[in-house]
Amino acid sequence: MGRVTARRRVIRIRDGAAGARPDTLVAEEPMEIRLDGRPLAVTMRTPGDDFALAAGFLVSEGVLADAGELANIVYCAGATEDGGNTYNVVDVRLAPGVPVPDITLERNVYTTSSCGLCGKASLDAVRTTARHAVSDGPVPLRLTPRLLAGLPQRLRAAQRVFDRTGGLHAAALFSADGELLDVREDVGRHNAVDKLVGRALQQGRLPLAGAILLVSGRASFELVQKAVMAGIPVLAAVSAPSSLAVELAEEAGMTLVGFLRGSSMNVYAGDHRIALE
Amino acid sequence: MGRVTARRRVIRIRDGAAGARPDTLVAEEPMEIRLDGRPLAVTMRTPGDDFALAAGFLVSEGVLADAGELANIVYCAGATEDGGNTYNVVDVRLAPGVPVPDITLERNVYTTSSCGLCGKASLDAVRTTARHAVSDGPVPLRLTPRLLAGLPQRLRAAQRVFDRTGGLHAAALFSADGELLDVREDVGRHNAVDKLVGRALQQGRLPLAGAILLVSGRASFELVQKAVMAGIPVLAAVSAPSSLAVELAEEAGMTLVGFLRGSSMNVYAGDHRIALE
Repeated sequence: MGRVTARRRVIRIRDGAAGARPDTLVAEEPMEIRLDGRPLAVTMRTPGDDFALAAGFLVSEGVLADAGELANIVYCAGATEDGGNTYNVVDVRLAPGVPVPDITLERNVYTTSSCGLCGKASLDAVRTTARHAVSDGPVPLRLTPRLLAGLPQRLRAAQRVFDRTGGLHAAALFSADGELLDVREDVGRHNAVDKLVGRALQQGRLPLAGAILLVSGRASFELVQKAVMAGIPVLAAVSAPSSLAVELAEEAGMTLVGFLRGSSMNVYAGDHRIALE
Repeated sequence: MGRVTARRRVIRIRDGAAGARPDTLVAEEPMEIRLDGRPLAVTMRTPGDDFALAAGFLVSEGVLADAGELANIVYCAGATEDGGNTYNVVDVRLAPGVPVPDITLERNVYTTSSCGLCGKASLDAVRTTARHAVSDGPVPLRLTPRLLAGLPQRLRAAQRVFDRTGGLHAAALFSADGELLDVREDVGRHNAVDKLVGRALQQGRLPLAGAILLVSGRASFELVQKAVMAGIPVLAAVSAPSSLAVELAEEAGMTLVGFLRGSSMNVYAGDHRIALE
């Protein structure tokens, strides 16, 4: 894609001594997601996998649940005054017969509830929009701490851009036996997850039964929501989860692991999938 | 506020041995921001400093620029079906005579430009909505690397919640001589900055001429934007900036420091404010 990183001159200071040198930065640009031509959302993202990002965003919002509902995705030409294409406006077209949902940025999943805005309402909104159940797959999932402990280093080994810029969040999908299925990076953590889920949708792999999603930072409500919408049964984070993230994981029957570092981890929800000695 | 953290039972695994114990989680709940009664945005935040968060958000959006434009801020009672108050819906009322801007979530700062959506358009949008210039104050700012290097440990010393949960982002304001002026924490980094800026607005301290903003993570476009809108001349981040963050800092005349760790740092823009030996 060529725009994932940008080169730039910086002043580097080490122990009081300064010198100019070129540095590699992670690229960040706005992307507008349109649904059948109608503007829906703008996200600041790292260019690349833009169609997957758009598809994954729409899975998170409950608009798309399988590849058959998607007609195609295109960059909008004519997005600039001179008719040029910035490759920052993406239009998702639904398959014939699939209704265009009444979804706007003002009526998002956090505000669909009529019972007043609170954590409970956010949980209700996910439950009513979820189109896949969190699923183990053909056999009940039983993961050993040893298997989970090995995932972060597999993620780091697979990261292509991080070492150069230090500015990217990563998200990876693993199979139940720890095989790396896919990894995406982005300046925004939620985008990295949307890109993973969008690719899975495009390849007809939703729901992601039996899969493990690993994220490089914290586990927020939003990340658990995205995992739930994709049917992912296990979310592991290198850092802390929030209270509402734990509540949503528990309600959805998902296993939520946090502070996954070395041979240590905390299990916040769904410990029936962890094979404790 | 009492809701900044929540207690919860977790399974803690260390080297294969598992035990249940109580753990402290950072609280995350949705908050709806209304402007003169009209719903404007929903953000997932850590409860606390909610009025400052709402005020700071509106500074970032270019709606508020000084305390005189603000009439008052209230929690909306009757937000639930039984007329109760979830303390998650906040209404910001503008002072008499202040026009209610035509601002909606669909027409946000990233999409105000007619020239097509791209990084350039995002920069243009900030320039046209900024109501304060980035300002050094009475004398030109000259910061030593030594002064900057000392800020992260002052921030950590001032953090109240982080050590208990590991789940919070922090942002702090310092004076030009390194004095800690204010520190806020939140599950969302942008919220921590909005809370700082909102308090400054409420206290009549905008623009924050001569101030240094320190953030615990990466420097994204959005964080630089928030600093620009508050007139802050120096943004320092513990981790990497993005390409668009650097471009915006440069265009706004702001000094942007990244990878501020120990005695090391990189200066990405505005190095005229750094006193190099």
